[in-house]
Amino acid sequence: MSGHVVVLSGGLDSTVCMALAAAAGGTAPLALTFDYGQRHRTELDRAAGVAGHYAAEHLVVHFDATAWGGSSLTDRSRPVPLGGTEGGIPSTYVPARNSIFLAVALGVAEARELDDVWIGVNAIDYSGYPDCRPAFVDAFRAVAATGQRRGVEGNPVAIRAPLIERTKAEIVALGRSYRAPLELTWSCYAGGERPCGACDACLLRARGFAEAGVADPALG
Amino acid sequence: MSGHVVVLSGGLDSTVCMALAAAAGGTAPLALTFDYGQRHRTELDRAAGVAGHYAAEHLVVHFDATAWGGSSLTDRSRPVPLGGTEGGIPSTYVPARNSIFLAVALGVAEARELDDVWIGVNAIDYSGYPDCRPAFVDAFRAVAATGQRRGVEGNPVAIRAPLIERTKAEIVALGRSYRAPLELTWSCYAGGERPCGACDACLLRARGFAEAGVADPALG
Repeated sequence: MSGHVVVLSGGLDSTVCMALAAAAGGTAPLALTFDYGQRHRTELDRAAGVAGHYAAEHLVVHFDATAWGGSSLTDRSRPVPLGGTEGGIPSTYVPARNSIFLAVALGVAEARELDDVWIGVNAIDYSGYPDCRPAFVDAFRAVAATGQRRGVEGNPVAIRAPLIERTKAEIVALGRSYRAPLELTWSCYAGGERPCGACDACLLRARGFAEAGVADPALG
Repeated sequence: MSGHVVVLSGGLDSTVCMALAAAAGGTAPLALTFDYGQRHRTELDRAAGVAGHYAAEHLVVHFDATAWGGSSLTDRSRPVPLGGTEGGIPSTYVPARNSIFLAVALGVAEARELDDVWIGVNAIDYSGYPDCRPAFVDAFRAVAATGQRRGVEGNPVAIRAPLIERTKAEIVALGRSYRAPLELTWSCYAGGERPCGACDACLLRARGFAEAGVADPALG
């Protein structure tokens, strides 16, 4: 048996990750999406669309991160910064978000007897979130090795972060070569009906498509 | 400012942990409880009672671990084993439970600007869960150091596991000396209205009180 859990937000990176996992063989990846009270709820519908594209089981886990806040993505009283990176870690950082995502993903993988967890974190063209960097992913691999039955048995759930050292342009190119449904994806943080074009996520995405020399199929 | 997050299940160990955190100074600890679909839902009321005893804010985070299962505590079709330890990791093991708890706790601590997270894990008189052992807690400390803004800034959220190498009898004695409200606690996994006396959690608890030479105030 071979199978994969993919942490799928419905954004560009996680959708390319889904394409890579689907191409890695085994059963259709299980797509794992989190409804945590994020401002940009459109991504939940996009994730469902991407999961449908791959005929994947789509597990949506709900938890309410607005109960503790600490981020402009979960606290509606804080504006999402527009117009470029602020320097340092921006206010859109959600405390421990990828830790929560990976912890649940490890639990799902073990319960469902799936081999590995794929996550589309990227530490090159990114917003500076600490939980997108290789040191963080390595720390979580140690969690899988020490904190789970599978780890103790010598067969830990693997964590795959195939995009972590790719540029955004490379991710766009990779997505195209693997026929990822990039037209279904959503990156904007601002919470509007169309991408704002000005938040960090929009700017990073636009630069990636521009550097890859292709039009963004999700626009226009 | 000094403040603490305590992962509080309403059981014996986490309640003693609450007492230790309350005695450590600062504001009243924030009690963090998880409603994850556990069979033994009585513990949620007990946790509320313990939080109330300490006049602590009680944050209950809901997520539905029955959606993926993998444990007799979250899958009603699997019986809770009775009559002593099975050898190895028992079926009551919930995949990645403490990883999820600690990940959320780290997020809450960072968002609320609290110093540390306390968790009552124990690797001596325990059921053999891998996520109760020192190596696991150390791995999660590396997650806090690498994956959070606070870690990057050189002031990671600390994870305190003061009971990890205590016997259950020592935990009972510690709870008594710190005036923890042990009479409010609940350990049984079986999901009945009274402790079953036969599941791992009941047996470990009974042995702890017996070895400490005191009656369990939650019984009778």
